[in-house]
Amino acid sequence: MGGSIGLAVKHRINGCKIVGYGHRPAALQAALKMGAIDEAYDEPGPAVRDADLVILCTPVGVIGPMLEQICPELAQGAIVTDVGSTKRHIVDAGEALLPAGTHFVGSHPMAGSEKRGVEFAREDLFDRALCITTPTSRTNSQALDSVTSFWKRLGMRSMRLSPEDHDRILADVSHLPHVLAAALISIQEDVALDLCGKGFLDVTRIASGASGLWRDILQDNSDNVRRSVAKLVEHLRELEVLLEAGQSEALERWLVTAAERRKKALERREGE
Amino acid sequence: MGGSIGLAVKHRINGCKIVGYGHRPAALQAALKMGAIDEAYDEPGPAVRDADLVILCTPVGVIGPMLEQICPELAQGAIVTDVGSTKRHIVDAGEALLPAGTHFVGSHPMAGSEKRGVEFAREDLFDRALCITTPTSRTNSQALDSVTSFWKRLGMRSMRLSPEDHDRILADVSHLPHVLAAALISIQEDVALDLCGKGFLDVTRIASGASGLWRDILQDNSDNVRRSVAKLVEHLRELEVLLEAGQSEALERWLVTAAERRKKALERREGE
Repeated sequence: MGGSIGLAVKHRINGCKIVGYGHRPAALQAALKMGAIDEAYDEPGPAVRDADLVILCTPVGVIGPMLEQICPELAQGAIVTDVGSTKRHIVDAGEALLPAGTHFVGSHPMAGSEKRGVEFAREDLFDRALCITTPTSRTNSQALDSVTSFWKRLGMRSMRLSPEDHDRILADVSHLPHVLAAALISIQEDVALDLCGKGFLDVTRIASGASGLWRDILQDNSDNVRRSVAKLVEHLRELEVLLEAGQSEALERWLVTAAERRKKALERREGE
Repeated sequence: MGGSIGLAVKHRINGCKIVGYGHRPAALQAALKMGAIDEAYDEPGPAVRDADLVILCTPVGVIGPMLEQICPELAQGAIVTDVGSTKRHIVDAGEALLPAGTHFVGSHPMAGSEKRGVEFAREDLFDRALCITTPTSRTNSQALDSVTSFWKRLGMRSMRLSPEDHDRILADVSHLPHVLAAALISIQEDVALDLCGKGFLDVTRIASGASGLWRDILQDNSDNVRRSVAKLVEHLRELEVLLEAGQSEALERWLVTAAERRKKALERREGE
């Protein structure tokens, strides 16, 4: 996502110097070449030294250690945000570690695809997508406004949620679908793979996402993910009871409720 | 699906007269107008009277009663097939009800979308899609060959499965995904609907399917669907254990296995 942020900033915000840090030299070279960054560093310290805004775009499990590395190097007044898919632990770490006079604001720009790497970077990745910022009672309100306005300038819609609400809702709407897609594909008999149609491939598409990233996310949000799984299993039990009892009308209601709710989700999205 | 079959036959098989039966006059008129059928009937008896091949394209729950209605009218040598998404009960009914000298062969052309109605008919609906035929020890082999060859002439790939294997595998690969999509959308909090991204909408797309059709399918295949749900819930329990125990490596393996399996499914599909 770092590459897409660089490209989007280059196209949409004048007068920024974009400094990239990465541990793969080839990725840094590619980012320089495509104009996603102006300067490249293979260590985080020098990369953040003069930055007004630092955006951490690493897997969720690496954001904590990365914060520790950059803290001593931050300039007075620097704002640090991140793009992690979970927020409670990251925001806790940011608020605990950042030195006085610097500010942490949690962000979750909900954009991207199952494809990773700077070669897939797109300057329009953020257009009309939703960015959730997750302020707490300790968040500096000017820093929050700066971060919100930054994502808006990249074309994003914005929403604010507490880190707790964010992680609970995202478990339902993002982490659970991933888990279900993975489970669904895993339980198939071999012959079923020859039979799967477009519907099946749609449902399981997100199971192709990077396993390391998703391991971090599920672990970091483990309590909420387990609660979401339990909620789903309970809803499936309702269905099992209806099927066992042959309750035709209640079964149809179970299905109609779902179809209507999806229609609502789609309308809200189209209305944006 | 009847409309698409009519259009496909018209474009790809010479010298057929296509007779349509339906209970909605507007749909019959539309089908005549677009050339999907040559003659229209509002009763099944007259529609099938001189037919060499009868294709029942009604919801799964209506195929049995429809078979009873058409049996007395079938010509000697007529072949009857269907497009139902479940096969055990339909094939049983076909074999039990059809008079001597006529033949039933179960078909499941896996094509179509969540959109219903003759206005969505497409002559290329069947191109490269898979058609499963479900012969039993009682199936006439010439009738089976005729039906298989008919679907192939519409552009379909073909596969044969016993009605039992068909219903077991389809529960995993088609009915379970539908149930999961419906459950997933149903358990969301209202605020989650504002947050859902492309991944979520992909995963739940099939939950928009016609509820009446799906009620029939789930009821007809109730035993297998419940077994599929149980299998999935068991696989989710494995995940819960890994999350509770914080078993990072095993968790990543759980995810990698799924991603690799989806890749395999996609490769098989692309290799077709």
